[in-house]
Amino acid sequence: MIISTDRAKRPSDFTREPVIITGGRVCPFCPGNELKTPPEVLSYRHSGKPNEQGWWLRVIPNKFPALRVEGELERQGEGLYDRMNGVGAHEVIIETADHFATLGEMTDRQISDIFWAFRDRIMDLRKDKRLRYVMLFKNHGEAAGASLEHTHSQLIALPVVPKRVQEELDGAKRYYDYKERCIYCDILQQELETGKRVVLETDHFLAISPYAPRFPFETWIVPRRHDSHFEAADATVLQNLGWVMRTTMRKMEKVLEKPAYNMMIHSGPVQEGPIAHYHWHIELIPKLTKVAGFEWGTGFYINPTPPEESAKYLRDVGLL
Amino acid sequence: MIISTDRAKRPSDFTREPVIITGGRVCPFCPGNELKTPPEVLSYRHSGKPNEQGWWLRVIPNKFPALRVEGELERQGEGLYDRMNGVGAHEVIIETADHFATLGEMTDRQISDIFWAFRDRIMDLRKDKRLRYVMLFKNHGEAAGASLEHTHSQLIALPVVPKRVQEELDGAKRYYDYKERCIYCDILQQELETGKRVVLETDHFLAISPYAPRFPFETWIVPRRHDSHFEAADATVLQNLGWVMRTTMRKMEKVLEKPAYNMMIHSGPVQEGPIAHYHWHIELIPKLTKVAGFEWGTGFYINPTPPEESAKYLRDVGLL
Repeated sequence: MIISTDRAKRPSDFTREPVIITGGRVCPFCPGNELKTPPEVLSYRHSGKPNEQGWWLRVIPNKFPALRVEGELERQGEGLYDRMNGVGAHEVIIETADHFATLGEMTDRQISDIFWAFRDRIMDLRKDKRLRYVMLFKNHGEAAGASLEHTHSQLIALPVVPKRVQEELDGAKRYYDYKERCIYCDILQQELETGKRVVLETDHFLAISPYAPRFPFETWIVPRRHDSHFEAADATVLQNLGWVMRTTMRKMEKVLEKPAYNMMIHSGPVQEGPIAHYHWHIELIPKLTKVAGFEWGTGFYINPTPPEESAKYLRDVGLL
Repeated sequence: MIISTDRAKRPSDFTREPVIITGGRVCPFCPGNELKTPPEVLSYRHSGKPNEQGWWLRVIPNKFPALRVEGELERQGEGLYDRMNGVGAHEVIIETADHFATLGEMTDRQISDIFWAFRDRIMDLRKDKRLRYVMLFKNHGEAAGASLEHTHSQLIALPVVPKRVQEELDGAKRYYDYKERCIYCDILQQELETGKRVVLETDHFLAISPYAPRFPFETWIVPRRHDSHFEAADATVLQNLGWVMRTTMRKMEKVLEKPAYNMMIHSGPVQEGPIAHYHWHIELIPKLTKVAGFEWGTGFYINPTPPEESAKYLRDVGLL
């Protein structure tokens, strides 16, 4: 990561395009339109039967999946190249029945329920031993890749551990081999001591601007208790996570004017037991800059905002 | 890379935002405004002294550099973290005096000259032994990260070999250790034999849709003669590259309606001699899709257009 202080940027220096929810078109994620989506695989409801109204959270298969559960996992060669068919799952978590809600405006409880749904789906999908990794992520706003505005997250289950996750696992393993400590636990301790990159702190979580952020205002939410797997989080932790996520998102919405953003959960491979060297966490990336030739060519990122500054903006903003 | 054929996309299925050059504001890259930029480090001219009019190509330091040449290279620790100061260079190649030109509209000779300028700057910068890598890239259109519309490329010289380049070098090395052949030479041979991913072919280059493209219509231009370093290309090769680049860009402009795009040269580290396992090449990425949470989280890319289809569109399009 290259922090380019010659270009240091305050929130108002970015070209901001606030994500405004207009509600213009018929929305397949709204109550009453349940039959416009594939049949649900999970719902949390006050009333009604599956695929009827009465739900407050609903999980459905993606209508245009990148991967499908059906079929055998096959690898084959094609001359020099290797090919694997796309066995997996691609689901959509409709986070609320309210078309106009954003994470910053929802209640703690509503957001906790999103994480409960993530957990429920992981516990179900990991029974399929072909599925080695479950990636949970959210694209908010068209600039961040969302094609529908009704707030939702996505789940993709994969027959392989993704490249970037494996790199993170390998890096954490090297640190552990050397120090016999989890690098994320050490980061938590150092960040708490210096304080300057901390956005907020609870008994269960720390939200920080990471030391070497790829993007301006990139923020990580890291559980204070060591667990390699998100699905190991218990009720107390998930309840607290609702508050932490809502508060962090309200801060971002305020400082950056309702930015488009991506959210990803980084967690251990679902077929593996607890891992001493890995530590699950959430990454939040507001969409403020364009990724361009230099980044694609090098894998390096030029970031105009030092993490100490973005943490200070987010820490200090009033929420009233 | 996940090729998602359920979502297979033709060129007209993408939301296209043609890059239109409007010429509205005062442009620091236009002739007559030479003193609005830092003093030039290179120019190709018909007439005039440095920083006067009369040039047809001009290289200047970036006014807001991500890195600077001044200062010693220092590494230091900060608790857990490592820090290195930003020694390097960041230059801008103004590719023509014509504010409204695009690569697809320029002459072969003009484009050859851009590559000559790249080569001249590498030969100069590599004398500074601190600079280990020179990345040459181009961002065209605001969606691809360009902040000025007058056509230009950029050069960033770095005190380290970038992560993505090192991965490519390491991967190519493993193949070489196993087969004692360059993987890119083998790819060229296989692509020529099957033909279905070939966009165009000359005595010196092959333009192909790579087997596992991250992005729809991603295109690589690969020299047929094995050379690890771009700067090893001779006059015949650079002359031909002018035609190959112009023709490929005209095809892209036609099929994809003047897309925003990124171009990157992948080449060996400048302080190293010829490398048997590496092969320089150019990557072209039109900006048709948004990179979102799944891609950031996994390092995998979901691509709706199979390379055989994008190659066919580009191969078959008429240029008259």
